[in-house]
This record gives sequence, C-alpha cells and structure tokens, in this order.
Amino acid sequence: MLENLAHVFQPLATKQFDLLLVIYLVAITTEAMSGALAAGRRNMDIFGVAVIAFVTALGGGTIRDVVLGNFPIGWTQHPEYVYLVILAGLATTLLARFMHHMKSVFLMLDAMGLVAFSLIGCNVALQLDYPVVVIIMAGMLTGICGGILRDVLCNQVPVVFCRELYASVSLFVCMLFLGLKTLGVDSDLNTVVCFVVGFGFRMLALRFGWKLPTFSYQQRWD
Amino acid sequence: MLENLAHVFQPLATKQFDLLLVIYLVAITTEAMSGALAAGRRNMDIFGVAVIAFVTALGGGTIRDVVLGNFPIGWTQHPEYVYLVILAGLATTLLARFMHHMKSVFLMLDAMGLVAFSLIGCNVALQLDYPVVVIIMAGMLTGICGGILRDVLCNQVPVVFCRELYASVSLFVCMLFLGLKTLGVDSDLNTVVCFVVGFGFRMLALRFGWKLPTFSYQQRWD
Amino acid sequence: MLENLAHVFQPLATKQFDLLLVIYLVAITTEAMSGALAAGRRNMDIFGVAVIAFVTALGGGTIRDVVLGNFPIGWTQHPEYVYLVILAGLATTLLARFMHHMKSVFLMLDAMGLVAFSLIGCNVALQLDYPVVVIIMAGMLTGICGGILRDVLCNQVPVVFCRELYASVSLFVCMLFLGLKTLGVDSDLNTVVCFVVGFGFRMLALRFGWKLPTFSYQQRWD
Repeated sequence: MLENLAHVFQPLATKQFDLLLVIYLVAITTEAMSGALAAGRRNMDIFGVAVIAFVTALGGGTIRDVVLGNFPIGWTQHPEYVYLVILAGLATTLLARFMHHMKSVFLMLDAMGLVAFSLIGCNVALQLDYPVVVIIMAGMLTGICGGILRDVLCNQVPVVFCRELYASVSLFVCMLFLGLKTLGVDSDLNTVVCFVVGFGFRMLALRFGWKLPTFSYQQRWD
Repeated sequence: MLENLAHVFQPLATKQFDLLLVIYLVAITTEAMSGALAAGRRNMDIFGVAVIAFVTALGGGTIRDVVLGNFPIGWTQHPEYVYLVILAGLATTLLARFMHHMKSVFLMLDAMGLVAFSLIGCNVALQLDYPVVVIIMAGMLTGICGGILRDVLCNQVPVVFCRELYASVSLFVCMLFLGLKTLGVDSDLNTVVCFVVGFGFRMLALRFGWKLPTFSYQQRWD
Repeated sequence: MLENLAHVFQPLATKQFDLLLVIYLVAITTEAMSGALAAGRRNMDIFGVAVIAFVTALGGGTIRDVVLGNFPIGWTQHPEYVYLVILAGLATTLLARFMHHMKSVFLMLDAMGLVAFSLIGCNVALQLDYPVVVIIMAGMLTGICGGILRDVLCNQVPVVFCRELYASVSLFVCMLFLGLKTLGVDSDLNTVVCFVVGFGFRMLALRFGWKLPTFSYQQRWD
C-alpha cells in the first residue's frame, strides 16, 4: 500500500514521501472519525455514518481531481483507502464514548492532516502544469472540501467558514511551499519546513483562539 | 429510444436488457415524481419543481459518471430522458392531490428503480475496469445520490441516512451481482436473480420497518 | 485579459465578443458581491466570504464544464478571474454599508450577468456538439448554479426556486438564441437581440413581480 501513492509524489524523494503517505493515512482516518461524529450528532444510521466518514475523508481529494480534470480520481485506484475510512467511521460508533478524552490528540492529528492534504493537493496540480493560483486552490480544496461536504450533508453552515484559522493555514502552507520551491529549496526540505510551520501555525491558532475578522451583514433588501 | 441505452448493457443479452431499460424508464419517472413532491413541500415554483425532478432522477447517474470520469455523461446523449423527467415532474403538480392513494404503488416502483439503478451503475463501472469496491460504489452512487441531492437542495438531512433499509439494499444487490458474476452465472439469470431478491428485500424492509442501528452522539467538544 | 476568452466565443465576431466579455467580467464581479453579502448574513469570516464569492461567481461555469466534460475548466486557465472575484468579495465587506442605496444598479448588473452567462453557456455546449436540450441546459446551468451553490453553502433553500422569474429568463434567452441561430440570423445580431430581449424581460419581471405559479404540497405520507 505504501508504494501505491508513489506517482502522486514524484517530486519528493522516497523517504520524505513515505512519511507524507503515513501522515496522509493518519489524516484520512482522523477525518473519517470526525465525519462519523458529525453523523452521530444527526442520529444517522450506520450507513449514513459510513457515507459521511467517506465523504469527509476522501471528498476533498475527489473535488480537487474533478476540478482539475485529473481522472481517474485518486481513491478509485486505491480501494484500501475506501476500506480504511469506512472502517474508521464504523469503529468510531463503538469508540465515541471515550473520544472526548482524546480531544487534543484528535485536533493534533487533524492539523497534521490539514497540512498533508494541502501539500498533496499542490503537488497534484503542479504536475498537471496549472497556473499558480490553481495550484494553491488545489491544495486548499483538498484540505477543506471534505469538511464542507460533511457539513452540507449534515445540514449546517460549514464550520470552516466561521471558526479558528483553518483554511488560512492551508492557504499559508500552499503559498510557503510554492515560494520555497521558486527559491530552489530542495523538495524534501521544503516539505519538512512547510509541515512544521503549518502544523505549528494551526496549533497556535487553536491554543490562542486566533480567528479571522468576521463580516456581519443583516440588512435584507426585500 | 429503447435501443439507445444499448451500449450501457453490452454484457446483458437483448431481451433482459430491454426489460431493464423499461424498468429504468419507470424508475427515473418515479424518482422525478418524488422530487417534485419534495419541491412542493418547500413551496417551490414550477421551475424549482422541474429542477428538483431532474436532479432526483438523473443526478445519481451524473455523479457516478463524473466520479468515474465517464464522459459524455449519460443523459447528455439521451435528450428524451431529460424531457421525460421534466414532464413527469410537472405532471406531478397536477396529479399530486391523488397521489397519496397510490403510496404503495409508488414505493414499489421506487424499489424497482433502486435495484435497476444499482445494477446499471455496477455495469457502467465494470466496463471501465475499475476495482471491485469502486464497482459497488458506482452502483450505490447511482441508486442513492439523486435522493441525496434532492434533500440537500430542499435543505434537509438526506433521508437515506436515517430511514428504512435503502442504501443497504443497493449495497446488497451490487455485492450479489458481483458475487454471482464471479461464480460464472449467466448475465441474464444474474440480473433476474438480483432484481427479484433486491426488490423482495426492500419490500420486506418497508413492510416490517427494518432499519440499521442508529448512532447518536450528542456531546459537543467546544 | 480581453483576448483570453476568445476561444469561448469563436462563433461571435470580435466586436460583439469584446462587449460580451466586458459584460461577463461585470457579471462575475456582481455575482461575487452578492455571494459576499450572503456570507455576511451568516456572519462568516473573511475566508468564508472569499469562498462564497468565488463559488457564486464561478461555480455555475464550473458545474457546466464538469457536466459537459469540458476540461480544463474555464477559470483554471484564467487566474485573473479568480483574483477579480475574490477581490470583489473582500471589497464588499468594506462597501456593504453603502450598498443598499445601489440596489437597483445591482439588480440591473445581475440581470445583465444572467443573460451573458446564459449565452456563454450555450456557446460552450454548441462547440462541443451536444444535442439541443443539453445546449439549453448548459446555458441555464451557467446562469443559475452559482446562486444555487451559494444558497446551499449558506444552508438555505435556493432562492432561484421561489422568486421572481430568473431561471425562466435564462431558459427563454437560450431558446431564443438557438431559435434565431436556426433561422440563420447572424451571430452578432443574435447576441444583441437576445441580450436586449432577455435583459428587458428580467427587468419587467422584477418591476411587476412576475412569478411562476407555485406548487405547494404539505401532505406527508408517513
């Protein structure tokens, strides 16, 4: 399984790459669990749990691939990812009662996943020769669309539009990655730097409750 | 019109095939009507009714084709399907007052459609040489995504995540179909068996109120 | 930038074409601003504002291109459009307090955009040799899907399904355009006629509150 994702990461050296893949697998597992908990808040049945887990974990990459016209879509070539996220979702229904004790672990894993998703998304668009702004958007789409789909299917306004810095971390990571790449920084080093800085940024945002300014507009025109 | 869908069903013999196509046409008509009723519950105008009817009937196949990278998308090559589902949606606004008398007919047609959609979805992915789990998901996407889109556009949590066995029937049909195919069962026979068993399964689930266990998780972490 | 969209409009002569492009740019700016205001009504942060602005302005064309299998998707080849709509969205957060004074200007720009989107969508599908009904739907998808995505992400029933004639104007423009084209009317003239008639139709619908009949169905079956 570890070798399978290789084509996604051609620019990265093998060692780096395995690390990013491990983090990717941890990330989709974490996202699947967060999806399952959201489904539980809506009292869904276990099928709904499996769907929301799948969509939260792999929906971001799906939307990225569709928008980039990058067929076949990633997970269709990696059945093991599908099994992993569905199992993680279903396991969550059994483990949920213990989970709030692990909130901080969960948020750490989620932060790691956010950065990994962003870097992977950038790399996919880079290899397809898209313009810079599309590369950055591909990174962000991968990082945040899973959560947006989860919230739409659970009939609520996506939390990514209102909470602590999250998408901003993704944007920052993508820009840092492209910036360092333009400066000629080695891919391995670039990945490590982006990962450490992005992860630290997100943890600080959570710790200190950093948020973007909010725009409130209550006037109705009709 | 009956010949047009032929390329979707190459593995099936002609007779079987016509039957499945007839059931498919009945199914998209039924789905269009269910979409129109959902639009009526939200007091939409007749344009909204037409859109929701279209999306409910043909949205599942659209998402399947996009996810599989199967372009051009099915209905774009079959204008007659588009006319059919829009007409069915609009006719529903006239017939709605009589419809609750036909609830059981409606549920039967819907069950037939669920099985037909699932088998068609599996066949499309089979011909594109996708892995087993993707074939099964293609069947389920075709069967349930129309209803999910309908519910998202009507601003409610998709009923498929909370009600009597529905997606599970689709999953079961897809697995049975692939299982029998692996055992070398003739395509015609396979289709008939899956159809009868899947239809019976769904009707029993409705009759006895079979549901999947529900996952409730009310704890908020923040 | 003005030359960039040229390939979208091959059937149109250069002069016409520049005009339609200018209107297109005004239209995506207007749509981005309407998206930003909707985000403000949900108290989103400025990232949410940027996303909703982007999706409202460019989401319709994205869905059209995905449904038609028309890759690469338009805006991925025009980074300047992405910058434009995001800037328009962010600027709206500063200008919002003055905007209700400009309601009628806003509605006029929006009406122009609706017609421009519809004509552009038709032209894209025309060049890909799709059947008539798909060409009309491509025009309508371009015209209305941005607003539908905006409303889904803001967790409300899409207004396009319940308000004054809007999608109907798009439908009418697409049919008029194809009808005149079939009659052999020159492309330039056709575009101008469709634009004037469609714009007038929408403004009259707003002025006199023309609506489609509504379908209300409150009966629940369960």
